[in-house]
Amino acid sequence: MRQIYLDYQSSKPVDPRVIETMLPYFHDKFGNPSSLHREGDEAGEILESCREIIAKFINAEKDEIVFTSGATESNNLAIIGFALRNKAKGNHIIISEIEHISVHNIAKYLGKNVFEVSKIPVDQYGRINLQKLEDRITEKTIMVSIGYASNEVGTIQAISEIGKLCRQKGIVFHSDAVAAEGLVQLDVVKDNVDLLTLSSNDVYGPKGLGILYVKKGIRLNPLMIGGGQERGLRSGTENIPAIAGMSKAVEIMQKEMDEEIKRFAKYRDQLTKNILEKIPKCYLNGHPQERLPNNAHLRFEGIEGESLLLSLKDKGISISTGSACTSKTLEPSHTLIALGLLHEEAHGSLQFTCGRFNQDSDVDAVIEALPGVVERLRKLSPLYK
Amino acid sequence: MRQIYLDYQSSKPVDPRVIETMLPYFHDKFGNPSSLHREGDEAGEILESCREIIAKFINAEKDEIVFTSGATESNNLAIIGFALRNKAKGNHIIISEIEHISVHNIAKYLGKNVFEVSKIPVDQYGRINLQKLEDRITEKTIMVSIGYASNEVGTIQAISEIGKLCRQKGIVFHSDAVAAEGLVQLDVVKDNVDLLTLSSNDVYGPKGLGILYVKKGIRLNPLMIGGGQERGLRSGTENIPAIAGMSKAVEIMQKEMDEEIKRFAKYRDQLTKNILEKIPKCYLNGHPQERLPNNAHLRFEGIEGESLLLSLKDKGISISTGSACTSKTLEPSHTLIALGLLHEEAHGSLQFTCGRFNQDSDVDAVIEALPGVVERLRKLSPLYK
Repeated sequence: MRQIYLDYQSSKPVDPRVIETMLPYFHDKFGNPSSLHREGDEAGEILESCREIIAKFINAEKDEIVFTSGATESNNLAIIGFALRNKAKGNHIIISEIEHISVHNIAKYLGKNVFEVSKIPVDQYGRINLQKLEDRITEKTIMVSIGYASNEVGTIQAISEIGKLCRQKGIVFHSDAVAAEGLVQLDVVKDNVDLLTLSSNDVYGPKGLGILYVKKGIRLNPLMIGGGQERGLRSGTENIPAIAGMSKAVEIMQKEMDEEIKRFAKYRDQLTKNILEKIPKCYLNGHPQERLPNNAHLRFEGIEGESLLLSLKDKGISISTGSACTSKTLEPSHTLIALGLLHEEAHGSLQFTCGRFNQDSDVDAVIEALPGVVERLRKLSPLYK
Repeated sequence: MRQIYLDYQSSKPVDPRVIETMLPYFHDKFGNPSSLHREGDEAGEILESCREIIAKFINAEKDEIVFTSGATESNNLAIIGFALRNKAKGNHIIISEIEHISVHNIAKYLGKNVFEVSKIPVDQYGRINLQKLEDRITEKTIMVSIGYASNEVGTIQAISEIGKLCRQKGIVFHSDAVAAEGLVQLDVVKDNVDLLTLSSNDVYGPKGLGILYVKKGIRLNPLMIGGGQERGLRSGTENIPAIAGMSKAVEIMQKEMDEEIKRFAKYRDQLTKNILEKIPKCYLNGHPQERLPNNAHLRFEGIEGESLLLSLKDKGISISTGSACTSKTLEPSHTLIALGLLHEEAHGSLQFTCGRFNQDSDVDAVIEALPGVVERLRKLSPLYK
């Protein structure tokens, strides 16, 4: 029986073409770009040509790309690195109430250390209100950090508008674009962003590699001190196999993205439409239109998302109740609470995210399995009337 | 013609057996250990079994191992993370004058931020004098960080003695063991270390992964804030393919290390003996006995190491003039200066480090090529009399 995976938001299989591209860099072309010999020269050339390919993917310049160990590090470097470097200009930072746990916790940390953090609320669909954002900006505001799209409900923000507002106000704008990568055409120029977080795995590249786009002129303190790699912004020997892998992943994505988005949107819409029709008292979380093409986020009255997850697990279907990064706490999702859901509604939600290796039959299988599972669990539930 | 690589200190090819072990984790077993479904469970099990294998390699407990993105991050987490967490206890940190550039620069950074840093000198062979270390310890000293072995001249420190002294004084002892990994049997208990830095690539595992051993009871501030992975000490999705790779690398190392050390020592001694015999006014840097089995570090009067490097590069031989992490500066090596060498002596040095994929013929080729190169360069050199 085919194992059905609909949790691409948590982790993605590396594309086989990416693996193939990476292979020679593990053993044969293994040099350290800082070395002056032949292996070192070769590694240096690969590094810079990959940097260029990745820069193009988001319409950036080559020397605006900083390689990190992943999205968490990129978010830390962007927010903490910027805040510490620019604290003389002001100590106020704005994020939204539905940021990824890393941005959330970074802001909490800064809030305990000299900085003031404001959290902009979102509407019932998870969208930021531009006016509310503008109202929160003070003379002390130095940075706004708002995710490109919600890593949970999939709502896409009006990033370019937010960026425009920040630019008018002379405030630096950071966006964690991990959830949107490969699902929305990113363009740092059109989007008016100054700092952008990307992860390699989210374009089907290897784990352990992230990107921080740093617009020319933006100054950051490094978080990792050492040999001064990445123009002093991120020390540590460059991970060439992963960088070559991400570069290939981005090239594939650029070619296949349009078609893939259509296919995912078809899956998402089939799943949503059928489940909403077949299962009573079931609702869509997040924005009905302005959402990621691969994300269906649904809530089921009267039952726990976790019981649903485990019942589907028994049937060979892998889904999630929200962000994997917070899945092991018993707290309800801060994103769903911010959308105005009650605790029990938040706990009754399931997140389906499809991806490159899904087939039509995967969606059919979920549509087939879910109504029976929901019905059985509701019969056992004291909460369901 | 076979390309000859004798710069294993800068970068190592991943062992093909390690690559094979990693492969399934890129595409087939790609789960996020934080996920609650089947792929997540599987990833969680792999993570913990690898952690156990790696812990055993240094005689640590499983939950004393923190996965990071590499040795630079481990050094940052160990030193900055410990200093910030424990600054109420004291603000004095001791390192040696011959630390790796990352420890060196981290100490410099802390020295600008509330902390006082002392640098212990070394003798002409690169060894720390225990008495001098003891003399520097004050009531404010909270940490000593001394590399297990020099990443340049290969001198091995009396780590267990240093650790004993630190323990007697109630001071935490960190050691960056990257240069010694796989070349010396590491044992955190015998070595009396509290914090130990390792890198995956230095045991022929993939780049982009490091370890910090954190002895039970030692408290650190995290540097990377987010989902709380690695018991809150290092957030970010775990890099399972790399972790599985390092775990395999460590298993291979454990089995083959004894034999490998003998083979490397043979190469090192052949190289040293022949070059010292064949080339006049040539000297060994570092300790004659207490040195890494794979390290020959030599200086040649009257010529620049960089010219030697380039001439050997033309002959298909890759060596280094010192640490790759500092190779692109024109400064002489701080390690060689600390050993008491003059600037021109430091600049006339070459570092040969052999490794797993070297053959007898590689050493022969260097012994064959070097005397002619040195002679030619000396003829052109205004410095050589």
